[in-house]
Amino acid sequence: MRDEDIQKFSQVYRDGLLNDTLPFWFPRCVDTEQGGFFTALDRDGAIIDTDKGVWQQGRISWLLATLYNTVEQRPEWLAWSRAGITFLKQHGFDTDGRMFFQVIRDGRPLRKRRYVFSEAFAALAFAAYAKASGDEEAATQARNLFDNFLRFTTTPGLLPPKGIIQTRPAKGIAYPMITINVAQQLRECLGDTELFSDRIDRCIAEIRTDFVHPELECVLETVGPGGEFIDHFDGRTLNPGHAIEAAWFILHEAQYRGGDADLIALGCRMLEWMWARGWDREYGGLLYFVDVKGLPVQEYWHDMKFWWPHNEAIIATLLAYRMTGNETYAAWHRQVHDWAYAHFPDPEYGDWFGYLHRDGSVSAPLKGNMWKGPFHLPRMQWYCWRLLNDMIARSDIT
Amino acid sequence: MRDEDIQKFSQVYRDGLLNDTLPFWFPRCVDTEQGGFFTALDRDGAIIDTDKGVWQQGRISWLLATLYNTVEQRPEWLAWSRAGITFLKQHGFDTDGRMFFQVIRDGRPLRKRRYVFSEAFAALAFAAYAKASGDEEAATQARNLFDNFLRFTTTPGLLPPKGIIQTRPAKGIAYPMITINVAQQLRECLGDTELFSDRIDRCIAEIRTDFVHPELECVLETVGPGGEFIDHFDGRTLNPGHAIEAAWFILHEAQYRGGDADLIALGCRMLEWMWARGWDREYGGLLYFVDVKGLPVQEYWHDMKFWWPHNEAIIATLLAYRMTGNETYAAWHRQVHDWAYAHFPDPEYGDWFGYLHRDGSVSAPLKGNMWKGPFHLPRMQWYCWRLLNDMIARSDIT
Repeated sequence: MRDEDIQKFSQVYRDGLLNDTLPFWFPRCVDTEQGGFFTALDRDGAIIDTDKGVWQQGRISWLLATLYNTVEQRPEWLAWSRAGITFLKQHGFDTDGRMFFQVIRDGRPLRKRRYVFSEAFAALAFAAYAKASGDEEAATQARNLFDNFLRFTTTPGLLPPKGIIQTRPAKGIAYPMITINVAQQLRECLGDTELFSDRIDRCIAEIRTDFVHPELECVLETVGPGGEFIDHFDGRTLNPGHAIEAAWFILHEAQYRGGDADLIALGCRMLEWMWARGWDREYGGLLYFVDVKGLPVQEYWHDMKFWWPHNEAIIATLLAYRMTGNETYAAWHRQVHDWAYAHFPDPEYGDWFGYLHRDGSVSAPLKGNMWKGPFHLPRMQWYCWRLLNDMIARSDIT
Repeated sequence: MRDEDIQKFSQVYRDGLLNDTLPFWFPRCVDTEQGGFFTALDRDGAIIDTDKGVWQQGRISWLLATLYNTVEQRPEWLAWSRAGITFLKQHGFDTDGRMFFQVIRDGRPLRKRRYVFSEAFAALAFAAYAKASGDEEAATQARNLFDNFLRFTTTPGLLPPKGIIQTRPAKGIAYPMITINVAQQLRECLGDTELFSDRIDRCIAEIRTDFVHPELECVLETVGPGGEFIDHFDGRTLNPGHAIEAAWFILHEAQYRGGDADLIALGCRMLEWMWARGWDREYGGLLYFVDVKGLPVQEYWHDMKFWWPHNEAIIATLLAYRMTGNETYAAWHRQVHDWAYAHFPDPEYGDWFGYLHRDGSVSAPLKGNMWKGPFHLPRMQWYCWRLLNDMIARSDIT
């Protein structure tokens, strides 16, 4: 990557974060009356649904506290993060200790799900907020949430099955990969290195052994309990963006460990295989789902282009380049960057569209809903900006 | 509608059913080794997943027995229908009397769902098979299944909620409309007119009172327990194809009752409002979901063109024309017919594609999965062929 590209990318990500994404979302997503954050925003930022997703409350609190911890100690970032933490404490938890999935504006519960990602994202939020504020109780709560998440995701039978009879048991890559990410963030914010690093080791081992399949040259999304390939719709369905996100969590770990060659090789292999699977050679961009055998996928939106796989691929390609110096990854970074920036940003109102058709045209113009909020995009801008700055600092670029 | 159009449409539907749809699916979808039917067929008919959807077992058995009852007493239709009934009896039921949602090839259960549509479609199958075979036990089982379906769908609290806390109770149009359809078919096959007609009356009253909203000029898909409009994503999301299907169930009832003017008016109003909401003025065809206020829809596939809403609209427009003589409906019939036949049929391997992008291009080329099997398309071909034949018989068309 040439020096001027490094400078250019760095500026695009920094300016995008500080002058576009954050001003689009804040302060309008903050519910100053009833607490927490709205995320159902129309193209122009108008709030079109006041229900609040619990995932997003955690993710947004994490983002704000992380920016406070790593970019600049802006008082409003800390105050908004605290508002999310307070809302989570007051309204996020059921009496059984599990968290809700969705609440109405005033915090009363609307939906609870069998999986425990609300807990994972809340753990991120409490940890980053604890570091930003020095609040020891928040640190304790972050650890408790992570323990709870681990207990539920690793104890067989603890989560009620979703109407699935155990004729064909299966597991997804989501739990080990989210565990890696949460453990990395908790380690970053709270210390306790060995505990978290040990858990990360175990999850990377599980991904390597059970989900990474050299004979298929891919990362499977859903496998049998021992990593068996399940030759049915569910087992054949690959999620390239998700696997590429897992790849950069592993590359991040490689970097943390001073350039662990084995982890670099694993992360790069995952990126390469899933790039080959997911990149749309006809229209560009990353397909949402593909079948491992090239058969039709059952999910209706399989060939749509969502914003977040592109965010994750932008990080993964840059990090792979940073860890290896391999210009192929730099070229892929430019490729996915260029396609994403040509299609996702909304030139009129700012931020990114989330949902494009396969050909890159906009399918739904909204900026947020239960699933899209200020998370994947600003995390990518923040992560890549800092990574590029680090590259600039270590070189003679002026 | 001109006489030659009536003749032409009649022939298209008849030939499509007998020379295209049925030969594509049969006998290849029949599992002669382990019983029941496959539905996960690739574009060329190759079986790409051997799991069996319980909905489809019932729907296919119903179709075959209905063709036997109304078109021609082909022995293979009865034999295949019996094979489906046998498979359902052996593998469709859990020990609690509820039915499964999905089983593996040999019939062992894979998934069970909280809703009870497996029961509704099995009731259709047992009733039509009872009429075709004279099997009294099948007739009894059809009545029991319908009673069970009613018990679960009308007894508050009997079905475990899907992680939805009752902060904002809601109900969908699916239960009353499917009840109408099942009651109509059971009445047709088993008699017991008053019992079924009474139940139909109640469901039509519920749809009229709670789901048809004149102030919004639309049929809502999801409402509060008393028909309240819910101004959130879920409550705003309209499903035009579904409401148009409900409209023709009501028009069918109007026809059965000798042209009940009140029911004709209701069915036509539902069709008109949802045609206005669902027809895509830019690309043609029916959008899958639209927002009642024109806001963005949260479901990713909202603007895709699925086969089944077009099947239902083809029936509804023809039946509305048949019941009123209003040429507007004949024009709509031609319009949706022309768009559907220009985009859905697969000229190479036969049958219809199921999943198109908004612009009419093919998204997934498969012919069947857990949701698409030989049901909506052949039901439309069968229903419209017979309706047009009835029109021909009552006129002087030669």
